[in-house]
Amino acid sequence: MNRPHNFSAGPCILPLEVFEKASQSVIDLDLSGLSILEISHRSPAFVKIMERAQDLALSLTGLQNKGYKALFLQGGASLQFLMTAYNLLEKKAAYLDTGTWSTKAIKEAKLFGEIEVIASSKDKNYNYIPKDYKVTENFDYVHCTSNNTIFGTQIKHFPSTSSPLVCDMSSDIFSREIDFSAFDLIYAGAQKNMGPAGATLVLVKESILGKVTRQIPSMLDYQTMIKKDSMFNTPPVFSVYVSMLNLEWLERNGGIKAIEEKNKVKAEMIYTEIDRNPLFKGFAEVEDRSMMNATFNLTDDKLKSKFDDLAQKHQLNGINGHRSVGGYRASMYNALPLESVEALVNSMKTLEKIA
Amino acid sequence: MNRPHNFSAGPCILPLEVFEKASQSVIDLDLSGLSILEISHRSPAFVKIMERAQDLALSLTGLQNKGYKALFLQGGASLQFLMTAYNLLEKKAAYLDTGTWSTKAIKEAKLFGEIEVIASSKDKNYNYIPKDYKVTENFDYVHCTSNNTIFGTQIKHFPSTSSPLVCDMSSDIFSREIDFSAFDLIYAGAQKNMGPAGATLVLVKESILGKVTRQIPSMLDYQTMIKKDSMFNTPPVFSVYVSMLNLEWLERNGGIKAIEEKNKVKAEMIYTEIDRNPLFKGFAEVEDRSMMNATFNLTDDKLKSKFDDLAQKHQLNGINGHRSVGGYRASMYNALPLESVEALVNSMKTLEKIA
Repeated sequence: MNRPHNFSAGPCILPLEVFEKASQSVIDLDLSGLSILEISHRSPAFVKIMERAQDLALSLTGLQNKGYKALFLQGGASLQFLMTAYNLLEKKAAYLDTGTWSTKAIKEAKLFGEIEVIASSKDKNYNYIPKDYKVTENFDYVHCTSNNTIFGTQIKHFPSTSSPLVCDMSSDIFSREIDFSAFDLIYAGAQKNMGPAGATLVLVKESILGKVTRQIPSMLDYQTMIKKDSMFNTPPVFSVYVSMLNLEWLERNGGIKAIEEKNKVKAEMIYTEIDRNPLFKGFAEVEDRSMMNATFNLTDDKLKSKFDDLAQKHQLNGINGHRSVGGYRASMYNALPLESVEALVNSMKTLEKIA
Repeated sequence: MNRPHNFSAGPCILPLEVFEKASQSVIDLDLSGLSILEISHRSPAFVKIMERAQDLALSLTGLQNKGYKALFLQGGASLQFLMTAYNLLEKKAAYLDTGTWSTKAIKEAKLFGEIEVIASSKDKNYNYIPKDYKVTENFDYVHCTSNNTIFGTQIKHFPSTSSPLVCDMSSDIFSREIDFSAFDLIYAGAQKNMGPAGATLVLVKESILGKVTRQIPSMLDYQTMIKKDSMFNTPPVFSVYVSMLNLEWLERNGGIKAIEEKNKVKAEMIYTEIDRNPLFKGFAEVEDRSMMNATFNLTDDKLKSKFDDLAQKHQLNGINGHRSVGGYRASMYNALPLESVEALVNSMKTLEKIA
């Protein structure tokens, strides 16, 4: 079967072998005669899947035996916007505002306490990552967003602080080597580099919990979820299962270190063409460019229909930019093959020839 | 392939044709060349799936054009325990306590206002549905649980009240004809008669919303979810898709009216045997017996290993009772074929012969 090149910003491409195994398990999970969709979440088969997924999340990020727990929850990063505040915000927290998702996180947190925006790149429509700021005060926590899918920027140097550091890594977790132990709480919607939509990964250092005075509803309480091993209620079974398959794929292929090398090659290929080709210009500041989402515009909007025709002809799926930025966006998550980036670059070169 | 008889209490059996179509779509959704797991939730293909699932939920329950919205959310019924209170509880709400799930709902609601338990069957380990109560006061809402999976009881006559009526129908929605318009808010985790774990259906009458004074976080606000058509953030794409397939299967097979007839036959078959066979006794009061979950115990516990052997031999999966009740539980959701109930009944008869 001829598969389109899938540049979707998320939910996004996962490895074909993961789709194949998942497809099989929807009929028959490991020769049990039962579908992964019809087994109890309390069955030994699923308990093993949940444990394996948690272990992989910790081991791939190097967080094993360091006081962290891996949780698989529901509700996406958007539910984490309020859960982090519900669980950690007593008086005042600091937020780095680098785009739409940071802004939404700030909005939800404000219901629970005082928020100080320590820096923002809103002045230039979030095309850069603020750097001239210092976190001097003691905050309940400092929050940042590692990668901004919409604007195509990515934090290369994270805030330096003695307060607990919280990070929304939805769109670049498992894509590059960083010191994950610098963070006290990391959360990520599954639907980029982890698995299908419907699961949310939380990596949390247990020692930062239990310090706020408010009562927390069970479903929003990290401590409940830790105590119940992510099974306080029925978890999103299939999304956890496919996340496990995908993290196994990542481990089999050399882990984060190896995938980062591949991601670098893909990113360099597209950015080289954006900078070379006079018909395109990049949106994000060069030093803050994301390795996951390349945002770029045509220098002449009149060429739009020509380029869109080329994109359609070469089956480049999901390259339209977000309405906040316009133009194009190529999301190049872990599972996107180099050939897809080549196909995009070739179409950009073709446009130059025929324009 | 020889499939086991799947009596799992949930996640549970769905029709094989639903598994087959879902399996195919994990590789290639409707000949698009893309997996259902890798398409954007904003793509026309998925927007159509979401709309179709919502339409089916409304039309199968007869709630179309009656001021209701169908929402597909995350977090299961357990998140609804607090969302209902967050959105509706200003001063005082009434709860009918018919088991573990009611108790949990009450616990979460208490964080948001006063709760009056109007009746409870806790005195007899929830083996019956309370009936001798009257709802006279005006409450913010009255809450009940239509079917109690653990104890095997089911409400046949719902509370009569002029206050908004809220019902957790997780384990029996779409299984029997009732007047759904008697309720102002119905919620149900998908993983029984709707689809795989990871999605939650909410059917809500818009006119009851917007009446509390507290500020509600976006992800917990029904009005936000209505405004954004269940896509405030990335929805649980696959669970919604499979729910749509399953609701299509139900519609194709005559809707709730037709499935109720089949469910009646299955329930009658198992309860007849429980009452006839001297080696078994039912747990729930006869008049309150659930059509979905039959709970029963051995009259002589020494026969347990013999019956468990029979169950294993005949591939009766998931018939162990919940620890609160012990014994056995046969969950007979919509997709469970009559042959499975026959296999269970035959094993019960065999036990009688060999005991």
